[in-house]
Amino acid sequence: MEDIVILGAGNVATHLAKNLHAKGFRILQVYSRSESSAAQLAGKLKIPFTTNIKHINKEADIYIYALKDSALPDVIKEINLPNALHIHTAGSVSMRIFKDAGENYGVMYPLQTFSKNKEVDFSTIPVFIEGNNKNTIEKIQSIAKLLTANVYIVNSDQRKRIHLAAVFACNFSNFMYSIAEEILIDSNLPFDVLKPLIIETAEKVKTLSPTEAQTGPAVRFDDNIISKHMSLLNDKPQYKNLYREISMLIHDKAKQNARKIK
Amino acid sequence: MEDIVILGAGNVATHLAKNLHAKGFRILQVYSRSESSAAQLAGKLKIPFTTNIKHINKEADIYIYALKDSALPDVIKEINLPNALHIHTAGSVSMRIFKDAGENYGVMYPLQTFSKNKEVDFSTIPVFIEGNNKNTIEKIQSIAKLLTANVYIVNSDQRKRIHLAAVFACNFSNFMYSIAEEILIDSNLPFDVLKPLIIETAEKVKTLSPTEAQTGPAVRFDDNIISKHMSLLNDKPQYKNLYREISMLIHDKAKQNARKIK
Repeated sequence: MEDIVILGAGNVATHLAKNLHAKGFRILQVYSRSESSAAQLAGKLKIPFTTNIKHINKEADIYIYALKDSALPDVIKEINLPNALHIHTAGSVSMRIFKDAGENYGVMYPLQTFSKNKEVDFSTIPVFIEGNNKNTIEKIQSIAKLLTANVYIVNSDQRKRIHLAAVFACNFSNFMYSIAEEILIDSNLPFDVLKPLIIETAEKVKTLSPTEAQTGPAVRFDDNIISKHMSLLNDKPQYKNLYREISMLIHDKAKQNARKIK
Repeated sequence: MEDIVILGAGNVATHLAKNLHAKGFRILQVYSRSESSAAQLAGKLKIPFTTNIKHINKEADIYIYALKDSALPDVIKEINLPNALHIHTAGSVSMRIFKDAGENYGVMYPLQTFSKNKEVDFSTIPVFIEGNNKNTIEKIQSIAKLLTANVYIVNSDQRKRIHLAAVFACNFSNFMYSIAEEILIDSNLPFDVLKPLIIETAEKVKTLSPTEAQTGPAVRFDDNIISKHMSLLNDKPQYKNLYREISMLIHDKAKQNARKIK
C-alpha cells in the first residue's frame, strides 16, 4: 500500500489519518503549523511530525492536504513533487489548484462535521471525489472505498453546491440551535429541554423530505403567534429580523409546495 | 382514574391520547372538525368520536384541548363545564383563555415535533405545565408525570419563550434542511448524501453547546468561500440574502463569544 503524508492536523486531517492508518496505509508524517495539533495527531499514530514546511517528507506516494483553504497555495508550492498524487479535502476549492504541482491530482471531500475527540463511523460518510484523469479518479476512488461505502464521483461545480447545501444543513441549522440556546439561557431555562426536539427534527429527515415535514406557525403564517414571538425578540433586533425573514420564506415555500401537490 | 375527553385529533392529540390511554385513563370521546382525523384516532383507541361541537360528551372529569390555537375559543365556549379540569397543550396561548370556562384550568405543553405515524418515546419528552391554583398544578403535574420523567412547572412567559426557542431549534433548522434539499435537487444530487451530516450536527448538541460547536466559513467570515456560495445562489435571491444575513450573525456571535472566553 502507498505511503502517505498528511498535511494538516485539524478535525478532517485527524479523522482521515486515523482511518487511513487503520486500513493499513503507512502515514510517514504529519505536518501542521500548530505544534500542539501536529504533536497530538502524530502521537496518536506514533509517527513523526513537523511544523516546518521545509521539512515535509518528500518520500511519500500520496500527499493529502487537509488544511484551511487559505493555507493550501503555500504548502502546494513547497512540496513540488511531480510524480506524487496530490489530494485535497476541501468543499469549495477547485482541483486545478494543483495544476502546477504534478501530473496526478484530485479531491476527496468527506461530507461530515468532525470534532477531534468524538468518534464518527467513517464507513457511512459520503465522500465526493474528483481527479484530473481516469487513472487518478480510479486511484482516489479505490482509497475512498476503503474508508466508506458511499463514494460519489462529482465535478467541481457539484462539489461546490454540495458544500453550499452542507452550510445550510449543518452550520446554519446549528446556528438556529444556538439562537434557541440563547433564548432559553436568557429565560433561566436549561438548554437540555430542547435536545429531544432537536434530535427528533433531525431524525425525521430519514423518512420524510424536510420540505414536506415543515411545521410551525410560519407554514400558515399564523399572525397571532408570529407577532407574539417577534415582540419577545424586541431586545434582540438582529434575531427579530431573522425570525420575520425565515417565517416569510417558509410560508412562501409552503404555498408553492401546496400548489405543486395540487 | 379520571375520564378524559380529547378535543382535537392532530399530531399532539393523537400522541397524548394514545399515551394517556396506555396509562389507564378512560378516554370517553374524541372531538375533531375533521371526520377522517377523528375516526382515525377514535378507531385506534376503540372509542366514540364526534365532529359536532354540540355533541361533545359532558361527562368527563378532564378536557384536553389539543387544537389549533384559532379553534380554541369556540370549543371552550361550547363546553362550559365549571367543575371539570380544562387543559390546553399550546406553546403560546395564555392559560387565561379558560378564565370563564371553570374553576380549574391549566396547560400541559409537550415540547416535541410529532408525526401521526411515527412512534416517539413519550417518557423522555419535556412537558411544561401551568395551573391556575396549587391543587390544579399538582393535579396536572401528576398526570404529566405518568407520561414522562421530564415535567417542568413554568409560567406563561417562560412557556412562550420555550415555544419561540423551539421554533428556531425545530421549524427553522428544518427549513435549513429544506433549502439544502432544494440546492441538491437542482444539482441532480440525492438529498440522502446530507443525512449523516444532519444527524451528526444534531447529535453534537448532546455533548457540546451549539454556540461552542459552531463551524463553517461564516465563523471567520471567509470571504472567498462566502462569495463563491453567494454567486451559486444568484438564481435564488431570497436564499442569497438569507445566506448573507445568517453568515453575518454567525460571525458577530463568534466574535462576541471569543471575547467572553478571553
